[in-house]
Amino acid sequence: MPGNTIGSLFRVTTFGESHGPGIGVVVEGCPPGIPLKPPDFTESMNRRRPGTGVFDSPRSEPDRVEILSGVFEGLTTGTPIAVFISNVDVQSHTYDKTRGRFRPGHADYTYFKKYGHVDFRGGGRASARETAARVAAGVVAGKILSPMGIVVTGYTLELGGVAAREFDREAASKNPLHCPDLSAALQMTARLEKAKAEGDSLGGIVEMKVTGCPAGMGEPVFDKLDADLAKALMSVGAVKGVEIGSGFASARMKGSANNDPITPQGFKTNHAGGILGGISNGDDIVMRVAVKPIPSISIPQETIDMEGRPVSLKLSGRFDVSAIPRIIPVLEAMAMITLADHLLRLKAASIQNPDPLFGKNNEQKNTQELNKNDE
Amino acid sequence: MPGNTIGSLFRVTTFGESHGPGIGVVVEGCPPGIPLKPPDFTESMNRRRPGTGVFDSPRSEPDRVEILSGVFEGLTTGTPIAVFISNVDVQSHTYDKTRGRFRPGHADYTYFKKYGHVDFRGGGRASARETAARVAAGVVAGKILSPMGIVVTGYTLELGGVAAREFDREAASKNPLHCPDLSAALQMTARLEKAKAEGDSLGGIVEMKVTGCPAGMGEPVFDKLDADLAKALMSVGAVKGVEIGSGFASARMKGSANNDPITPQGFKTNHAGGILGGISNGDDIVMRVAVKPIPSISIPQETIDMEGRPVSLKLSGRFDVSAIPRIIPVLEAMAMITLADHLLRLKAASIQNPDPLFGKNNEQKNTQELNKNDE
Amino acid sequence: MPGNTIGSLFRVTTFGESHGPGIGVVVEGCPPGIPLKPPDFTESMNRRRPGTGVFDSPRSEPDRVEILSGVFEGLTTGTPIAVFISNVDVQSHTYDKTRGRFRPGHADYTYFKKYGHVDFRGGGRASARETAARVAAGVVAGKILSPMGIVVTGYTLELGGVAAREFDREAASKNPLHCPDLSAALQMTARLEKAKAEGDSLGGIVEMKVTGCPAGMGEPVFDKLDADLAKALMSVGAVKGVEIGSGFASARMKGSANNDPITPQGFKTNHAGGILGGISNGDDIVMRVAVKPIPSISIPQETIDMEGRPVSLKLSGRFDVSAIPRIIPVLEAMAMITLADHLLRLKAASIQNPDPLFGKNNEQKNTQELNKNDE
Amino acid sequence: MPGNTIGSLFRVTTFGESHGPGIGVVVEGCPPGIPLKPPDFTESMNRRRPGTGVFDSPRSEPDRVEILSGVFEGLTTGTPIAVFISNVDVQSHTYDKTRGRFRPGHADYTYFKKYGHVDFRGGGRASARETAARVAAGVVAGKILSPMGIVVTGYTLELGGVAAREFDREAASKNPLHCPDLSAALQMTARLEKAKAEGDSLGGIVEMKVTGCPAGMGEPVFDKLDADLAKALMSVGAVKGVEIGSGFASARMKGSANNDPITPQGFKTNHAGGILGGISNGDDIVMRVAVKPIPSISIPQETIDMEGRPVSLKLSGRFDVSAIPRIIPVLEAMAMITLADHLLRLKAASIQNPDPLFGKNNEQKNTQELNKNDE
Repeated sequence: MPGNTIGSLFRVTTFGESHGPGIGVVVEGCPPGIPLKPPDFTESMNRRRPGTGVFDSPRSEPDRVEILSGVFEGLTTGTPIAVFISNVDVQSHTYDKTRGRFRPGHADYTYFKKYGHVDFRGGGRASARETAARVAAGVVAGKILSPMGIVVTGYTLELGGVAAREFDREAASKNPLHCPDLSAALQMTARLEKAKAEGDSLGGIVEMKVTGCPAGMGEPVFDKLDADLAKALMSVGAVKGVEIGSGFASARMKGSANNDPITPQGFKTNHAGGILGGISNGDDIVMRVAVKPIPSISIPQETIDMEGRPVSLKLSGRFDVSAIPRIIPVLEAMAMITLADHLLRLKAASIQNPDPLFGKNNEQKNTQELNKNDE
Repeated sequence: MPGNTIGSLFRVTTFGESHGPGIGVVVEGCPPGIPLKPPDFTESMNRRRPGTGVFDSPRSEPDRVEILSGVFEGLTTGTPIAVFISNVDVQSHTYDKTRGRFRPGHADYTYFKKYGHVDFRGGGRASARETAARVAAGVVAGKILSPMGIVVTGYTLELGGVAAREFDREAASKNPLHCPDLSAALQMTARLEKAKAEGDSLGGIVEMKVTGCPAGMGEPVFDKLDADLAKALMSVGAVKGVEIGSGFASARMKGSANNDPITPQGFKTNHAGGILGGISNGDDIVMRVAVKPIPSISIPQETIDMEGRPVSLKLSGRFDVSAIPRIIPVLEAMAMITLADHLLRLKAASIQNPDPLFGKNNEQKNTQELNKNDE
Repeated sequence: MPGNTIGSLFRVTTFGESHGPGIGVVVEGCPPGIPLKPPDFTESMNRRRPGTGVFDSPRSEPDRVEILSGVFEGLTTGTPIAVFISNVDVQSHTYDKTRGRFRPGHADYTYFKKYGHVDFRGGGRASARETAARVAAGVVAGKILSPMGIVVTGYTLELGGVAAREFDREAASKNPLHCPDLSAALQMTARLEKAKAEGDSLGGIVEMKVTGCPAGMGEPVFDKLDADLAKALMSVGAVKGVEIGSGFASARMKGSANNDPITPQGFKTNHAGGILGGISNGDDIVMRVAVKPIPSISIPQETIDMEGRPVSLKLSGRFDVSAIPRIIPVLEAMAMITLADHLLRLKAASIQNPDPLFGKNNEQKNTQELNKNDE
Repeated sequence: MPGNTIGSLFRVTTFGESHGPGIGVVVEGCPPGIPLKPPDFTESMNRRRPGTGVFDSPRSEPDRVEILSGVFEGLTTGTPIAVFISNVDVQSHTYDKTRGRFRPGHADYTYFKKYGHVDFRGGGRASARETAARVAAGVVAGKILSPMGIVVTGYTLELGGVAAREFDREAASKNPLHCPDLSAALQMTARLEKAKAEGDSLGGIVEMKVTGCPAGMGEPVFDKLDADLAKALMSVGAVKGVEIGSGFASARMKGSANNDPITPQGFKTNHAGGILGGISNGDDIVMRVAVKPIPSISIPQETIDMEGRPVSLKLSGRFDVSAIPRIIPVLEAMAMITLADHLLRLKAASIQNPDPLFGKNNEQKNTQELNKNDE
């Protein structure tokens, strides 16, 4: 099990390295008849791609998406959708100076231990560049979720120690940090400037909300929805913690306070974060993700080389000051991939389905006479 | 993908409900020739089983393990090991009163939405009783890990708002809460007593340390070791958050502080929690898990019945005041299952081991010249 | 991937050995609300179990099925169904004489090579006894298939060199060999008697027909329906060949003869055996399976012992003269397991589904008007 | 489980359609450090690609392989190897005439039933063009097998009713049909010419031999080596039957004749075809595959259109007279993919190899005393 695939019915397999020909993804399980074309990827890809923000790596990648398969005459065919994103601005030479020295906080050391080599051109497969493929897959997942009214939104809850204190959805869409508190956003920006000047980097917390999920998604016992979401989010490079609903705060609550009372109108509170016993309860799904500071900093660091000798390392490549906000579309994509998979699993396994997604259902008289407009 | 299986090379499938004949597990991938007998399960099973502590459910289950397959003359055969634990003290009648009313904080509502029924005899498959099977599987995993020197230890870091401030491994083994700070343990006990008197429940935080892991465990991209650990831990009923290393605290650190300097003697600090880029780095793996308060409380609660009518619910079954400490062996088991799987995956895929097949690789001097006659 | 599981949405995992406590199976993916009780297994189990026919092993196993989980108040719950069949008539001592000698045609040698040991008590996990678990799983699969009108029927096409020349379905149900040609059945019986007298064994060919399959089952590219059926059937111990439709005969036909003309009333012929491009076409699925002669014979055989020394081996345990007819319910079960899996996969992935199977469920009046409050 | 992936540790996922941008494959699980470059693919790709033989489709595809990922400085990195083969000679217009008419013997009808559409440009995903990706994956598999001395060879045993009567390995390499009997090859060629003149097509039988396999490959119970090989081979479009060793002939043999006597020098005969109980026994693995005649013929055929009306169909596209010999490298590739997977599984799971984790190997006296220094 080589680990490049996630999902069971909606399956995503990524390939490619930061300094090879490009990054790609094969998406399986997307139902047929869904409109899909390259421009559909643009907005999400742009939110992730480097070189657009002042605190981003200046690597300039257009991240143009090529659809290699699975789409015919503008519609998905039900067969695997392969998407390829060429690497354009590859400057391996800037990494040459660090060749042979393990960058602290990066995967260089562990890849070397595992594979016996390390791709010093910028992280190879462990590079954040791989996440372009995840975002592309997330776009396809979104095509399954949005007709159901399922929407995933991430925003910056904390950055460099500054926490948002207000929640204004509109504000979030108006600042590049996607912070729902504009005054906090200003402070965050000041911290980013300071860190940049120091050659240092910052971490933060991203919150995600999923609205519109039907109850019933998630499988006991191991493939609980929250368990699969935790895995999906934790599989993103910089993530060091995941919590659902009240999360770590619930550890300090009493049962009487943490239990969400149920009324005919729905749950009164949402400490559960929309998931009970691993299954969605119809309420918003709320998750928070801890993002560590970018390990690439230009301050000299203590490390060793491949021969085990102590060396000092001063990086001068191109890197972000914080993984936030570029990581937000990646986290959203991972949530969408997981939700699309569990939506198909719900459809496959439960009695719930009046097959809201792909066609009518019981009343359908004549299954022979499929006609595309019905989908 | 029904979700009852975890792992790829070391695979664990559980079955059974809280009030049916019993709980079972099939463990696949255990190598042949390992000594295994029923008493090997006793200690771990005892740490999990109810009725032993003063704050536990008084349900009395001996949790006697029956080995149904996979062991011959005291040794594993390499074929699936099935273990069965009969339910003995089943008192369904105590649950009858709540039949038809969804218990807040439990999976009743979501199971009903998913499956169209709910097992009101105590949670059915969603019951904590299912974790007995996980502990049994963890024992088998431990048989693979311990010869390698890999040891997983969990302890109570926080309970009912009281945090351990000292870390004394010996103290942890001396108090029933497995808290490494004896004076904190006393305070925790006081909180438990108070909550019990109030008919309420408490949550807390469990920390786990894994010592002895070789570097190289974990697969990029999705099956990162921390991602798989997060899933495994989050799949335990009461868990609402997981963090690795500095976790959420790292979100407030700068890169220069969070990066662990590398020296010829190893890493200077361990903010990474033993995992870099999803692959173990040879240092201790450190995880913290948020455990919500037990949803079963005897304080009356607001809920609805299966017809959607508002009702009040006062539970009077048998339940714990806190999932801690009984959850600790379960979390340890989930970590062990995940680590055993990744240990076998490392063995299968990497150059680390004196590899018969691809061994000449990378400096490796002595690969033990495989020749066909040896096989 | 230890190999004890088959299926993806309908998943079957077997465990147990011929001379251990018993044989078991965990069936996942069975939808909730299906009536299931132990007597449902009786007929199929009886057709497979030894000791009922004159040419069978005299081992006497009642093959009583115990349902360990997944059924509550007589209905499936949607959680894993575990079934256990105790071994009752275990006579290990009769095998003691052969301990250390590899039985030709059996898996003794290869298990020894693979696992470093061999279970000489009768084949252990490689024993035909494991197929009891398959038959039990097939019964559950049948509960999914039969409401759809899908019926799998196997019969003896050839035995000991005698081929059926007529096809009379009623005749097949009237003779213990399930041969659709009564006069051929008489000849087959004569051959069995002769082989028994000689201490030898016979092989044969089983044909299976599946009626009632909707078009659309099977997944391109690798999980073609015929590919998965071939695997399922070939995974039964004695099977050495599988063909679909005209099979090997089609290799000798021209395209103009082998292509099945399509008319508004359906296919004119069925050389395809009901599968085109790996997907069911709505016609009967027809498969033939080559069953080798039982390797256990009482004629002395040339072999080696575990030290590699040449020895003679004369078996005197309890064994059948032919795997036919006891193998027929096993092959039917494997076909049913595969078809149930692909039926759920079709339901999950295609636009076809008017949800014939699980839709009517649970009073659900108006499945179209899904609205969030309902969920 | 969308079905585009085969294998567990060595995993192959294909994508692409006959008339889209191209065909691709992602190969996971290939160990690091293996030399791999585009020219390594040329020979196998050439054996499969059209337009090279007189009885082939004149579609002219260079089948140039582009390595998109997984190789750095000429060596595999251990990460997924993606290979892409552009479609160059796409003439969709020749298919336009048949648009809306289901070609008998093709997957048009079943794809339409499954997906609600059909790619009339030449079969889309069901086209034989998809097999280019399989051959490419087979080349990577070969890189794992050949250092172990495992070689897979396929040849034409029968074509158009003409059977090879001699087996001369050198002869096979000298005629384009890869027939080991030169006089039979001449007759086969005559039959091909005649069929071509008639606008008809021919089927045949391909035999494959695998030499050099160690004993111990294959997993009981379901993932038997022969079961997985049967699936892999049956997943190739034109294949309608698979047999191992004596196959269907063994159904007519007695046990005393079919059992292969074991001697200190090895097996005396090989009716088992190198596999016992689903596990390789160290002898040659022998398989035979029934290949149906190409369904594309220029003789008018009876069929229906998408509205269900009877129509006549006369195809005039570009197609082969027989799938043989172009199918041979595809079948070899499928066998190699399966064997590479099981070789890695053997490596992962068995005691056979000088095992770092669970002890030396067969000779090992005391498996209990594992100690870390042995690794």
